[in-house]
Amino acid sequence: MAGNSFGTLFNVTTFGESHGPAIGGVIDGCPAGITLDLDKIQMELNRRKPGQSAIVTQRKEPDVVVFYSGIFEGKTTGTPIGFAIHNTNQKSNDYGHIKDSYRPSHADYVYDQKYGFRDYRGGGRSSARETASRVVAGAIAKQFLSGLKISAFVSAVGPLKMETHYQELNFETIEKNPVRCADPVMAEQMEAYIREIRKEGDTVGGVITCVIQNVPVGLGEPAFDKLHAELGKAMLSINAVKGFEYGSGFAGSQMKGSQHNDPYNTDGTTQSNRSGGIQGGISNGMDIYFNVAFKPVATVMQAQDTIDNKGQKVVMEGKGRHDPCVVPRAVPIVEAMAALVLADFKLLSRTNKK
Amino acid sequence: MAGNSFGTLFNVTTFGESHGPAIGGVIDGCPAGITLDLDKIQMELNRRKPGQSAIVTQRKEPDVVVFYSGIFEGKTTGTPIGFAIHNTNQKSNDYGHIKDSYRPSHADYVYDQKYGFRDYRGGGRSSARETASRVVAGAIAKQFLSGLKISAFVSAVGPLKMETHYQELNFETIEKNPVRCADPVMAEQMEAYIREIRKEGDTVGGVITCVIQNVPVGLGEPAFDKLHAELGKAMLSINAVKGFEYGSGFAGSQMKGSQHNDPYNTDGTTQSNRSGGIQGGISNGMDIYFNVAFKPVATVMQAQDTIDNKGQKVVMEGKGRHDPCVVPRAVPIVEAMAALVLADFKLLSRTNKK
Amino acid sequence: MAGNSFGTLFNVTTFGESHGPAIGGVIDGCPAGITLDLDKIQMELNRRKPGQSAIVTQRKEPDVVVFYSGIFEGKTTGTPIGFAIHNTNQKSNDYGHIKDSYRPSHADYVYDQKYGFRDYRGGGRSSARETASRVVAGAIAKQFLSGLKISAFVSAVGPLKMETHYQELNFETIEKNPVRCADPVMAEQMEAYIREIRKEGDTVGGVITCVIQNVPVGLGEPAFDKLHAELGKAMLSINAVKGFEYGSGFAGSQMKGSQHNDPYNTDGTTQSNRSGGIQGGISNGMDIYFNVAFKPVATVMQAQDTIDNKGQKVVMEGKGRHDPCVVPRAVPIVEAMAALVLADFKLLSRTNKK
Amino acid sequence: MAGNSFGTLFNVTTFGESHGPAIGGVIDGCPAGITLDLDKIQMELNRRKPGQSAIVTQRKEPDVVVFYSGIFEGKTTGTPIGFAIHNTNQKSNDYGHIKDSYRPSHADYVYDQKYGFRDYRGGGRSSARETASRVVAGAIAKQFLSGLKISAFVSAVGPLKMETHYQELNFETIEKNPVRCADPVMAEQMEAYIREIRKEGDTVGGVITCVIQNVPVGLGEPAFDKLHAELGKAMLSINAVKGFEYGSGFAGSQMKGSQHNDPYNTDGTTQSNRSGGIQGGISNGMDIYFNVAFKPVATVMQAQDTIDNKGQKVVMEGKGRHDPCVVPRAVPIVEAMAALVLADFKLLSRTNKK
Repeated sequence: MAGNSFGTLFNVTTFGESHGPAIGGVIDGCPAGITLDLDKIQMELNRRKPGQSAIVTQRKEPDVVVFYSGIFEGKTTGTPIGFAIHNTNQKSNDYGHIKDSYRPSHADYVYDQKYGFRDYRGGGRSSARETASRVVAGAIAKQFLSGLKISAFVSAVGPLKMETHYQELNFETIEKNPVRCADPVMAEQMEAYIREIRKEGDTVGGVITCVIQNVPVGLGEPAFDKLHAELGKAMLSINAVKGFEYGSGFAGSQMKGSQHNDPYNTDGTTQSNRSGGIQGGISNGMDIYFNVAFKPVATVMQAQDTIDNKGQKVVMEGKGRHDPCVVPRAVPIVEAMAALVLADFKLLSRTNKK
Repeated sequence: MAGNSFGTLFNVTTFGESHGPAIGGVIDGCPAGITLDLDKIQMELNRRKPGQSAIVTQRKEPDVVVFYSGIFEGKTTGTPIGFAIHNTNQKSNDYGHIKDSYRPSHADYVYDQKYGFRDYRGGGRSSARETASRVVAGAIAKQFLSGLKISAFVSAVGPLKMETHYQELNFETIEKNPVRCADPVMAEQMEAYIREIRKEGDTVGGVITCVIQNVPVGLGEPAFDKLHAELGKAMLSINAVKGFEYGSGFAGSQMKGSQHNDPYNTDGTTQSNRSGGIQGGISNGMDIYFNVAFKPVATVMQAQDTIDNKGQKVVMEGKGRHDPCVVPRAVPIVEAMAALVLADFKLLSRTNKK
Repeated sequence: MAGNSFGTLFNVTTFGESHGPAIGGVIDGCPAGITLDLDKIQMELNRRKPGQSAIVTQRKEPDVVVFYSGIFEGKTTGTPIGFAIHNTNQKSNDYGHIKDSYRPSHADYVYDQKYGFRDYRGGGRSSARETASRVVAGAIAKQFLSGLKISAFVSAVGPLKMETHYQELNFETIEKNPVRCADPVMAEQMEAYIREIRKEGDTVGGVITCVIQNVPVGLGEPAFDKLHAELGKAMLSINAVKGFEYGSGFAGSQMKGSQHNDPYNTDGTTQSNRSGGIQGGISNGMDIYFNVAFKPVATVMQAQDTIDNKGQKVVMEGKGRHDPCVVPRAVPIVEAMAALVLADFKLLSRTNKK
Repeated sequence: MAGNSFGTLFNVTTFGESHGPAIGGVIDGCPAGITLDLDKIQMELNRRKPGQSAIVTQRKEPDVVVFYSGIFEGKTTGTPIGFAIHNTNQKSNDYGHIKDSYRPSHADYVYDQKYGFRDYRGGGRSSARETASRVVAGAIAKQFLSGLKISAFVSAVGPLKMETHYQELNFETIEKNPVRCADPVMAEQMEAYIREIRKEGDTVGGVITCVIQNVPVGLGEPAFDKLHAELGKAMLSINAVKGFEYGSGFAGSQMKGSQHNDPYNTDGTTQSNRSGGIQGGISNGMDIYFNVAFKPVATVMQAQDTIDNKGQKVVMEGKGRHDPCVVPRAVPIVEAMAALVLADFKLLSRTNKK
């Protein structure tokens, strides 16, 4: 194993480079008997795919998933689900300029150091294209988790930050704007800002908030595999993520215990939810919510000083079609990774009692 | 497995409840031939143990580790290292008041729901006492990682936040004040603040910063097991942690790419280090640094409304000796978990090339 | 995980049903920098494929492997190797007769019980077709293991048993007869016997012997993951295998210690090798050798009484083209599984010492 | 991980050397709510312990297990069960003669090669003493598996082989003779033979048969983790085991399909059971039965030529108190490993369906 698998019971292994023949994966441990809506899976992929709006990369990749196994007469069979997304847009000659040079704040240099060489076409394995396979697996996990509702949305783009509490938002608005912000007014400001950034040939970071509702009590394991620890790992494993906080998060570290504690109602629910739906690493039935911080995309359309693989200084300028801001397309990835974590713990929770 | 193991190759499994006969663990995969300084291991435990200063819990637990296996003539043998810390202070009658009631923002309720009942003595498995076993394992990992320097320190206590960049700090000062703050002036303010909070019968959260120096290039795996994803999981698995960020972190999400990118020097080092020593999930040889946010301890010495296991309202007041602020004692735990992650990836990196 | 992955560090996950669109897999953890001879991989597949000789199934499956990732400019990149073998011969209407009935000594009944239903086309996931993916992965493992020599051959077919010690055999003869027996005279007898069995509409079992030469000292882990325990699991996981023995095997259980012990030469080699190249679960540098027993193929071309999924008695007769004896085609599978075990332990052995 | 853990969900990690302070382990994943009979666990240990009869080693080890965690008010809590067996008989000066020399067919040489040195006291980690920890874990697994009946017994000692089919045996007789043979007449012959062998200063191998009754349908996973593959690995991981066969085993490889197939009854049971209770790697509800071959103990009370760690020839004679035949004491180990495999698959089978 070299880190390309995720999950203990509901497990996905992904493969594929940005500009190879195909990316894809295998889901092992998906329970039998789930009636799969394949269109919904493709719809999730469409939410992630390039070219979907004016503020994302204009690369053309249809990103159509094909399933090879594990589904029979519309239902999962309990055997591994193999799938692939064929790469249709392999213009690898576009990438000659990065063959021997190291793009700043990309993984080119460390791959060369770690492996001795690298597949330099489009970032190879380090490309965020790998996350398309996660979206497929997550979309299946979501269908296993019917009843739970996982809603991610953009809550900040650069300095523009949504301040409204998630309970006051209408999640129906998320897919109605290209930013995937849950506040329509803020969405327009963010969109305008991203357009401006792109005009500058620059990029900008952002924050995605995710809310999970209708979670049963008891998901997550004590000690190392706390529910929020796995969610944190899942989110931090997404390209460009720099931080994760759940419930009261970093702000909670400034509070006093008397302010921070969540008093119980007599039915076991809590009056406040600074715990973020998780106590001692285990879901308590309240909403789980967390924030994920994304750095700005490293590929800027400006000349940058850098070095080549002989340690010589070179000047490099971003080519091709890149995202000025990654968060709108990262929303379905955050949801997919959350779904994978929850599906795994849902299965695991069946083994807690004799 | 129910989440009580950590690590793929350098692996620790812990056991033990707060008020059972002993806690401890097994380290499997520690390479042979490491000359162990057992005093250093005990010293790390002493940094975590109760009663070490006036601003931590005054419980008396000597926390002496005994080793059962895996060490022969002063060196690791390559076989599993079994160890135990016997609990000497099992006043379980102190805990009658929580037997049937649920402490707010503790794990009592979710344990009962998940397992059908719980060992209620002192929080049982959900007690932070479990982390003593991690400190033992981490202390051994540190000795395997000779050359690397892992330095954690308290950078915030409630609203008091250190603003100095870590490169301007003298890490030698950390162990010279009871807060384990790397800034002696701020340390005094923090100490005074914690004393005040304790007088109020309250608690407060804080932030620990960790810096890892002399890291070789190439640790970490692409895709799911990125170096920072494992560090994030490791930190989030520590009791009371609510957030993790590395490098530019949440602040980085507000930046533009042109500002955020780290330009290369001709030797492969970078001029800035907003990447936090990690690119694409793989160490690049620069310092790794990250922040870990801790919520305030949930046990306050004030009357709180809560419920019992029949859903009846009860009033509960914290008893016994608890930490007003957890971060001073959590510093060695953060270092231990960081060491475990790095030891694992150090071993794994030996398998990258043919 | 539901058992479709094999290996700790050199890991393969397979997917695919007999009559779905494709079978395939992902190899995660293959080290970077191995120059792959793709023709050799296809050649191994050809050794396993149907229709290769007159004494195996006459089904036509070209079994051409396509690689999707993890290989660049002829070398492994250290990233996952995704591959597929498209099924070209999906005559699923052939299998209507087993849709509702349970073939004796097949997995139809237990799949229905375990999963609630099954993909009945050609045995679905329980078909030995799955092993083609193992052969691909094993062929890559072999190229990583350059220097080691893994030679499997048929040593028994039904009552016909080769008695010659492997050291007196010429392994070059194995591929020169359709049975893959290492003794040309015995090979002819076996071939004639298999033809006769087929004429009867019957099937027969057999034994494969595997010899591994040039093994470095030190592969295998004490306790649960002994080298022969993993080899045993690997072999027993192949369809139709009923037994495994290594070194002196079952016969060794009848011996006295004074007869059985292998005396050392002064260079650490041993004069005899009843240990089968493994002591205490760890390779000692001598040849590893073991036997694998295969039961007769369950599909016979004779009418058999059986039941349908309503518990009604039915009569069933084997249709289509099946192997009268599975061992000739199982030889490359045994080698592939042996290679996977050794590749995994080769990587793991790099982590034994500090 | 270096192979000292067993099981995916019901997992045990063992530690300890023959002559260190203690051996023991941690069971992670044992479900909550099992009322444990601790006396039964100790009774299983007593079945394995030295000195229990005249035909086993006369070493004195009380082998008393102490539990440190995971049990509260008589029931498992769902948290890890830590336990230790303190070594009371650490006469390590007995072992000076093997400090620098390599006992034939022991693991001394390979440990030195693999790890650079070894804990030479009593075989260290390679001693079968490690299996006491497995017996503890297996005894707990048995209590989780209430309803299943796991019965192992000695079916051969050297050339003395029981020919009676297991269904004609009375398992109640097993514990009534020191050999643990299920046939009282044969038991006497075996006992006499072992006494004779011991008088010669020699040792002898044997076979253990294990029968598992009342197994639910559906345990085991297709592909790599077939039920019999895991049973095989479990058995082969026991010290001195050279072979494993289940159901028709090696004899089955000589049969024709028309003879070997098990015809169904209308209730899904089968008329014969050459499948050994497992089809396609999954239990079918019939009895599971298998044979495990043990080589003769390598330590003989006779002078043997061997080498020291400088490659010089030396003569070595077994000292101390050793077993002339290992199978009587290995019976509870076989049962324990079988229980661990079944407990794991019992938990895993809860995740097969949506």
